[in-house]
Amino acid sequence: RKDRRPGEETVYVSKAVPQTQVDFEYDGPCMKTSVPGPRSQELTKQLGEIQNVGAINFFCNYEESRGNYLVDVDGNRMLDVYTQISSIPIGYNHPALLKLMSNPNNLSTFVNRPALGILPPETFPDTLTDSLLSVAPSGMTRVQTMACGSCSNENAYKAMFIWYKNKERGHNTPSDEDVSTCMVNQAPGCPDLSIMSFMGAFHGRTLGCLATTHSKAIHKLDVPSFDWPIAPFPRLRYPLEQFTRENAQEEARCLEEVEDLIVKWRQKGKPVAGIVIEPIQAEGGDNHASPNFFRSLRNIARKHGCAFHVDEVQTGGGCTGKFWAHEHWGMDDPADIVSFSKKLLTGGYYHKDELQADKAYRIFNTWMGDPSKNLFLSEVLNVIRRESLLEEVARSGRALLNGLYELQVCIRKRATSFTIIYPSILTGRARGQGTFCAIDVCDDATRTSILLKARNKGILLGGCGERSIRFRPALIFKEYHVHLFLNIFNDILAKHK
Amino acid sequence: RKDRRPGEETVYVSKAVPQTQVDFEYDGPCMKTSVPGPRSQELTKQLGEIQNVGAINFFCNYEESRGNYLVDVDGNRMLDVYTQISSIPIGYNHPALLKLMSNPNNLSTFVNRPALGILPPETFPDTLTDSLLSVAPSGMTRVQTMACGSCSNENAYKAMFIWYKNKERGHNTPSDEDVSTCMVNQAPGCPDLSIMSFMGAFHGRTLGCLATTHSKAIHKLDVPSFDWPIAPFPRLRYPLEQFTRENAQEEARCLEEVEDLIVKWRQKGKPVAGIVIEPIQAEGGDNHASPNFFRSLRNIARKHGCAFHVDEVQTGGGCTGKFWAHEHWGMDDPADIVSFSKKLLTGGYYHKDELQADKAYRIFNTWMGDPSKNLFLSEVLNVIRRESLLEEVARSGRALLNGLYELQVCIRKRATSFTIIYPSILTGRARGQGTFCAIDVCDDATRTSILLKARNKGILLGGCGERSIRFRPALIFKEYHVHLFLNIFNDILAKHK
Repeated sequence: RKDRRPGEETVYVSKAVPQTQVDFEYDGPCMKTSVPGPRSQELTKQLGEIQNVGAINFFCNYEESRGNYLVDVDGNRMLDVYTQISSIPIGYNHPALLKLMSNPNNLSTFVNRPALGILPPETFPDTLTDSLLSVAPSGMTRVQTMACGSCSNENAYKAMFIWYKNKERGHNTPSDEDVSTCMVNQAPGCPDLSIMSFMGAFHGRTLGCLATTHSKAIHKLDVPSFDWPIAPFPRLRYPLEQFTRENAQEEARCLEEVEDLIVKWRQKGKPVAGIVIEPIQAEGGDNHASPNFFRSLRNIARKHGCAFHVDEVQTGGGCTGKFWAHEHWGMDDPADIVSFSKKLLTGGYYHKDELQADKAYRIFNTWMGDPSKNLFLSEVLNVIRRESLLEEVARSGRALLNGLYELQVCIRKRATSFTIIYPSILTGRARGQGTFCAIDVCDDATRTSILLKARNKGILLGGCGERSIRFRPALIFKEYHVHLFLNIFNDILAKHK
Repeated sequence: RKDRRPGEETVYVSKAVPQTQVDFEYDGPCMKTSVPGPRSQELTKQLGEIQNVGAINFFCNYEESRGNYLVDVDGNRMLDVYTQISSIPIGYNHPALLKLMSNPNNLSTFVNRPALGILPPETFPDTLTDSLLSVAPSGMTRVQTMACGSCSNENAYKAMFIWYKNKERGHNTPSDEDVSTCMVNQAPGCPDLSIMSFMGAFHGRTLGCLATTHSKAIHKLDVPSFDWPIAPFPRLRYPLEQFTRENAQEEARCLEEVEDLIVKWRQKGKPVAGIVIEPIQAEGGDNHASPNFFRSLRNIARKHGCAFHVDEVQTGGGCTGKFWAHEHWGMDDPADIVSFSKKLLTGGYYHKDELQADKAYRIFNTWMGDPSKNLFLSEVLNVIRRESLLEEVARSGRALLNGLYELQVCIRKRATSFTIIYPSILTGRARGQGTFCAIDVCDDATRTSILLKARNKGILLGGCGERSIRFRPALIFKEYHVHLFLNIFNDILAKHK
């Protein structure tokens, strides 16, 4: 289709990909009301008496939801390309998970939540080995579970601070001054160390994480923060392969700035203990960088004695076509810490041996995760393997990205004349890895309008950054679903304004 | 027994309280090996390849645990007076919770974890109303769930910062400077506001919480912090009713210091947006203060325009004989924010209407709690009501505290002479509310020795502070269990050294 010329009829039509593999789901969207429908509006009002409901999209009927389809309380059935902010790995009500739940041997795991750091269940080491460690990043044999993404990153930062200070004091016992000053938040016990992050990053919203988050003002406004260095994240041109030279220059500029900031913050007396980065900036607008950028960054971290923390909370779990997005970098030693949550169902982080805190209770809390989530994860990993879902994601991802490329250049027959329509809506920045894709829309208002229209046509999408639409389907999103989506989405773009 | 005189035989003997109400549990501890036994040691070694295991006590067989009894992997059955760091409300494998799990209508709640802030399930408003709001603190009709105690406090702090700044800017739109500076962690967008906390406090271990935690150096060492004011928590003499005058003086001293610090930090340019306090400092050593202290503190907060946050993560859920420990203060308007977790099974915080963030996405994360935990909580609250567990706790608590008082003055027949023995071990500081009790031991080494001996006799206890032993049984811990415990504990003290 690359040789298509203006004038050709190119409204996107689904290829005949049969629906076979997601047997337990529906055969397409089915809309009965606009969204939110009357029942959702009623419930939103009810919940408004209890909470801020400004972010509520609609209320869901999770019992009736299946596979890639989310059903709402008004009976609308939508193809879910957002999956609860990218956190549903194998779709709704997967039979394997329902089966797991109905196994009486598993009941006790749900009913008795242990304090994992002191009184773990007998199965805990084996479950970790079979689940999280079976997909451990290269070079890592240690993992610490946590309840959510923010706690994972907060504790990963603590692990880096502890590692850095132990290194600095030559692994000697902390001084009496260290011990007494830390109790009252003062140096040297609470040292002026920093974590370097990148503009556009999102690492969570608790106070430590928030100091490394720079995606939207609404996340950060009015919350005290730390004076930590913030490096520029490369602003690349897409498609990447068309702009290799410009992009390499931009990445070199950012890497130079990284080194400058490390030196500057050391001189300021706030040395950089660790660098945290997402393989693809997700919340910040699906910003990519090249494997070469990450390899260089990893080397800079090593050179300056900073720990290197790769935050895979949104990119991890298979959606890029590899289990971890950082695997695309092709490195044996990609990171010192890799944090996860969302699709992994449990939060936590892997770390290299030397990043393990030297003493008990330094990285600790009551629950330290939740074994019932580890149980689900084991089964999710079984399904991923049994159904070769990483290959499926790679295949669906290619179809999705190609479809998005085509939409960008698509021209449409209107009446008798031919008009180039979409370029005024889409800005030619389609990009992605696996099904972890995004496009940019001309402005925020247009994006909002398109997202709402898509929803009313039975396609649930999410935004990110200033004017991107992000695609975050489950791993069971097949080529069939890609084409179903592209047909409807094309239709919406065609009819826009 | 108050008129007991030296010479009387007072080895503590259980009163004949019949075991009736906790039908599903065992009839007493049963020890087969010392703890940790060989299987636990083997598993600890295995887990040591994956994690720091310095805090692991032993491995558990949660399937076989029942009610107040925790069974380990070596077949030892212990009376659990620590309950997973105070987080198991109605004992292990409670039939009501198992029944809930086996209801097929509930499966979907476990299998499909929603992003509650955008796509809640149909049942969410009703579940909140039936569960959390049915036990809401006085004056509060709003609640926000979170995944754990730390996230609850982090977000409560953010709510106080947002509230304070909105008040300060007269509820006007943030300036462009606010918006641009917050993106790079700088004032005025990220303002120099502070949260006041107390020496000995524990509010969690993520970076914001940790800046308000001052219980043990191991929690804080090497982690950067904020320059926030730390007030003295009253150091009272026990039993409180014997030292009312001295204690009132001590509390007045602390309150005066609170006001001084508020003024001082305002002058420093770091105004106190909120004050956070536990009704009983738990991790810090079970430090109590009088209702009058808390009432005065609440008034000081109001006078200086600071929000007042009561952290009930450990004290909440009924263990003090009231559902919330702050109910003992007898106030209609006890707080602006009350946070919870542990026995509530879900984290979260209640807040007054004006503490709700003015815009969506200011208090937000992917999961915002977990509806499956709300489901369990609903059932736990049913059980608490059906079985009148708060009254039971009050009754058991009286028996426990009286028993501890007696142990403190207990004298023991040794050979033919009578020797006062326990005063050299126990330091006369038995204290508590409900079953939330503690005693102090002469020194840390003796405490460790007693805790290990107790465990080998089938009693699982925890420490807190520098030399306290804390009692944190489940709400189904009856008088029967109190006397069972006291008998064994007396025996351990009697044989000590």
